[in-house]
Amino acid sequence: MTAAPHCSTPLDRLDEQAKHTLFTGARTANTFTTTPVTDAELSAIWELTRWAPTSANTQPLRVLFVRPGEGRDHLVKHMNEGNRAKTAAAPAVAVLALDTRFHEHIPAVLPFKPELKNVFAGNDDLRAGTASFNATLQAGYFILAVRAQGLAAGPMGGFDAAGVDAEFFPDGRLHSILVVNIGHPGPDAWFDRLPRLSHDDVVHWA
Amino acid sequence: MTAAPHCSTPLDRLDEQAKHTLFTGARTANTFTTTPVTDAELSAIWELTRWAPTSANTQPLRVLFVRPGEGRDHLVKHMNEGNRAKTAAAPAVAVLALDTRFHEHIPAVLPFKPELKNVFAGNDDLRAGTASFNATLQAGYFILAVRAQGLAAGPMGGFDAAGVDAEFFPDGRLHSILVVNIGHPGPDAWFDRLPRLSHDDVVHWA
Repeated sequence: MTAAPHCSTPLDRLDEQAKHTLFTGARTANTFTTTPVTDAELSAIWELTRWAPTSANTQPLRVLFVRPGEGRDHLVKHMNEGNRAKTAAAPAVAVLALDTRFHEHIPAVLPFKPELKNVFAGNDDLRAGTASFNATLQAGYFILAVRAQGLAAGPMGGFDAAGVDAEFFPDGRLHSILVVNIGHPGPDAWFDRLPRLSHDDVVHWA
Repeated sequence: MTAAPHCSTPLDRLDEQAKHTLFTGARTANTFTTTPVTDAELSAIWELTRWAPTSANTQPLRVLFVRPGEGRDHLVKHMNEGNRAKTAAAPAVAVLALDTRFHEHIPAVLPFKPELKNVFAGNDDLRAGTASFNATLQAGYFILAVRAQGLAAGPMGGFDAAGVDAEFFPDGRLHSILVVNIGHPGPDAWFDRLPRLSHDDVVHWA
C-alpha cells in the first residue's frame, strides 16, 4: 500500500496542568502584585488571540493596552466604583473594543471575496451584529490567552463605556466592550469560587 | 522574617505545544474522519468551558450536542447550502444557544446577591444584552475547549437560526447563536490560512 496522499493527523490534547491553567484552576484575580507586565508580554497575548477564528475572518476586535500612569488614571475614572481600586492597582489593563468599520479590512483579510466589504457597508444591522458577535468571541479568546501567558485576567463589564470611548476613542470608530485587568495575582486575589450550573442545566442531546 | 500570610503563587504558562494546539497551530476543520466522538468526549468539552468567567456569573450559554442520525439530519436542513456537507459529515455537532431566562438561576449561581434576578426580570434590554454578550464570550471559550480536548472545531454562523430554534427549542426559551462541527480532521481538512490583521492594526497603547 502506498500512503494516502492527504491522510489526517491526530491532534494533540492539553494535559491536565494546561487545562488547569486555562480552565479548571484559573480564577478571576481581584488583587495584583507590583511585578510589572511588560509591553512584550502584552503583545504576546495578542499574538495568541489573533489566530482564533471569526466569521468570514472579520477580526473586529481592537485592543488598547493601558499602562500605569496617566492612561490608567484616566481609565480608572470611568470604572464603576467597585472596580476602581482593582484597576488602579493593575500593572496593565486592556480595553477591548470593536471596530465599527472592520469591513474596510475585508479585501485584505478575505482576498477571495473582497466584495463582502460592500455587503457590510450597505447593511448597518448586519455590520453591527457581525462586529458585536465576533469581537465578543475574540474577547473570550483574549481572556484565555492572558492565562496561557501565565498572567491573571480580571475581566470587568462594570464601566462607563461612553466615557471610555470619549476619552480613548474620540473619533467614534471604536466602541469598548470589556475591560480586563492583567497582572500577577497578589495577596487574597481570589474570592470563593461561585457555583456553576449543573451539567444537566446546560447540556442537552439530540 | 516570617512568611507572608497570603503570599501569591506564580501562575503556570502554557508551553509552545499547548499554545500550538489552542491558538497558533489550530485551524477550522472542513472535513472529518469517520472516527466517532463519544458522549463522554462531548461532556468533557463542557466540563472545561463551564469554569471560564461570565459577568455576575450569569452563565447564559446552553449547548445542544447533536449526534449522527435523525437529529443531525434535521439540523443539516437549516444550515446554509455551503455548510450542509460539512455538518452532514461531522461526527458530532454542537448548537450553541443563549437562555433568554438565564436570570432564573441567579439565586443559585450568585447566592450573595439573589435580588439581581429581579433586576434582570424588570429590564428587558439589560437581560437581552447580558445574555447575548456572555453567551458569546462562552462560545469563544467553548471553541478553545474543543481544541483542548484534542478535537477539531468547525464554527459556522451560516444557518437559519429561526429554523433551528423552531426545530430544537420549540418553547422559545433558547436562541441559537452558533453551530460548531466537532470531530477528528479528515483528508484536506484545512484551507490555506487566511491573513490576520497586522499587530499595529489591532493593538494600541496608552
